[in-house]
Amino acid sequence: MSPDSWDDAGVYRISAKVALAQTVDFITPVVDEPQDYGAIAAANSLSDVYAMGAKPTVALSIICFPSETGDLNVLREIVRGGAAKLREAGVTLLGGHSVRDPEIKFGYAVTGEVDPKRIVSIGGARRGDLLVLTKPIGTGILATALKRGVLPRSGIEAMTASMKTLNRAASEAMRGVAHAATDVTGFGLLGHARNMARASRKTLHIWSAAVPLLPGALELVAGGIASAGLKSNRDGMSSEVVWADAVPEPMREALFDPQTSGGLLMSIPVSKADAFLKTLRRKKVEGAVIGEVRPQGRRALEVDA
Amino acid sequence: MSPDSWDDAGVYRISAKVALAQTVDFITPVVDEPQDYGAIAAANSLSDVYAMGAKPTVALSIICFPSETGDLNVLREIVRGGAAKLREAGVTLLGGHSVRDPEIKFGYAVTGEVDPKRIVSIGGARRGDLLVLTKPIGTGILATALKRGVLPRSGIEAMTASMKTLNRAASEAMRGVAHAATDVTGFGLLGHARNMARASRKTLHIWSAAVPLLPGALELVAGGIASAGLKSNRDGMSSEVVWADAVPEPMREALFDPQTSGGLLMSIPVSKADAFLKTLRRKKVEGAVIGEVRPQGRRALEVDA
Repeated sequence: MSPDSWDDAGVYRISAKVALAQTVDFITPVVDEPQDYGAIAAANSLSDVYAMGAKPTVALSIICFPSETGDLNVLREIVRGGAAKLREAGVTLLGGHSVRDPEIKFGYAVTGEVDPKRIVSIGGARRGDLLVLTKPIGTGILATALKRGVLPRSGIEAMTASMKTLNRAASEAMRGVAHAATDVTGFGLLGHARNMARASRKTLHIWSAAVPLLPGALELVAGGIASAGLKSNRDGMSSEVVWADAVPEPMREALFDPQTSGGLLMSIPVSKADAFLKTLRRKKVEGAVIGEVRPQGRRALEVDA
Repeated sequence: MSPDSWDDAGVYRISAKVALAQTVDFITPVVDEPQDYGAIAAANSLSDVYAMGAKPTVALSIICFPSETGDLNVLREIVRGGAAKLREAGVTLLGGHSVRDPEIKFGYAVTGEVDPKRIVSIGGARRGDLLVLTKPIGTGILATALKRGVLPRSGIEAMTASMKTLNRAASEAMRGVAHAATDVTGFGLLGHARNMARASRKTLHIWSAAVPLLPGALELVAGGIASAGLKSNRDGMSSEVVWADAVPEPMREALFDPQTSGGLLMSIPVSKADAFLKTLRRKKVEGAVIGEVRPQGRRALEVDA
């Protein structure tokens, strides 16, 4: 990403009517089931394109796999899970690249198309807009619990279902409505909200109690389950957040939790919010209003209890 | 790559006049100097696009780096070397993705533009065409020697210079001339020649003595310097090659040597070959005629002494 751009995908204008949005992303396994992992990696890679209001069209796969020690059936299942998710998204696989690697990684370089005049940027949030988030947070906490063997079956299922869900419906719903959008991934909800605040020269005010959470996330993080990424997000960003005293400690942690294939965070004009939330519900997207956009204050973010 | 396509990059048609060629490639370090490694990784990633006669326009970087143990100055030099090579190629960097990884890897997802009617495919070789190769082979052998500490300075320099060279001039020269082309990379000269033979339903006849080699490559491989990739290329492909008895053993090995940022292998009509070689020379590309295209025989490849 160039230093003067906070957007999720790079944009390249082909003509007055067509721009290409391009992105590349790949991840280590977050769940044990190979097909689910492949599908999650695909949904995660497509997400940056959806976050700009673009329609993903083609993809190239990126595969890192231990060729000597790895079970090729596992690799086949990963690729199959990814391919099925691309089909669901209407994306054509054009090719890819594989390398031998002791650590499994999988993902895609994705290209999408968008009308250059209809790109949804991260920097367009306006004063008074409402902030809408389309997936619960906590995938990093639950994935860490899974790795430590302390995540119940219901948690695995909730986390997997959320990460496998495409941001397509949310992306389609926001076109012509959202002033700004981004997808919530490695920097956590607050990290990506901070990027939107900076790019838009506003302060984002988050109502923490309204932020949807995966089941068990707060209890797990309260019990000490947190990834290295959560801690480094928190260390790196604390100076940019004004906290209300009443925000409980586990909630503060969860707001920094790095997400895999997280939802879209969108800045929606108040006048259109009600109709927009209804549209999301009709599309089976659980959009939650989690805050509002305020004039640029001393810090990029304010978090209320 | 889809099983019915042998082409180097995926192609996606935007309009009657514009198709996009897309490819992704990243490699582990092949030389010690970080800027050279970055430049080589860039030239290597762009090569698939050049091989189709397309003009690369935008790229996304792919970085795997050990964040805890790695020296960030090294990473900076790698990225700088890559960026300089992209600039030389006239390619815009749109963004990228980085992950923590114990093993360094670097490369790009690249998109190029080409007139759909002027795509140079791997499958167009015609009977009687001459085969032209634009770089010497042996980068895998020399890189293995470097890792074992037995490569003289002159070898390092020759190998580095060759791998850093863009296939742009060769690509521009072949437009409207070549019936088919591919770039020589991980499968070695014979592996990629085999792919061209199969895709074109022809037999490629290689004059091994005419194949240009990096200095010392034959002596090194005769001394037992060979990568794992060379052996697996040889094991996997032996049944597809008819060898003249007189082809020396070290030459057989070298023809299977996996290349990084290798040259273009092009199928050129005899009537245009002389002018084409002159064009290459004017562009400072050392094109060597290394064989000819014959009717499809029992095997994909014949190698003469």
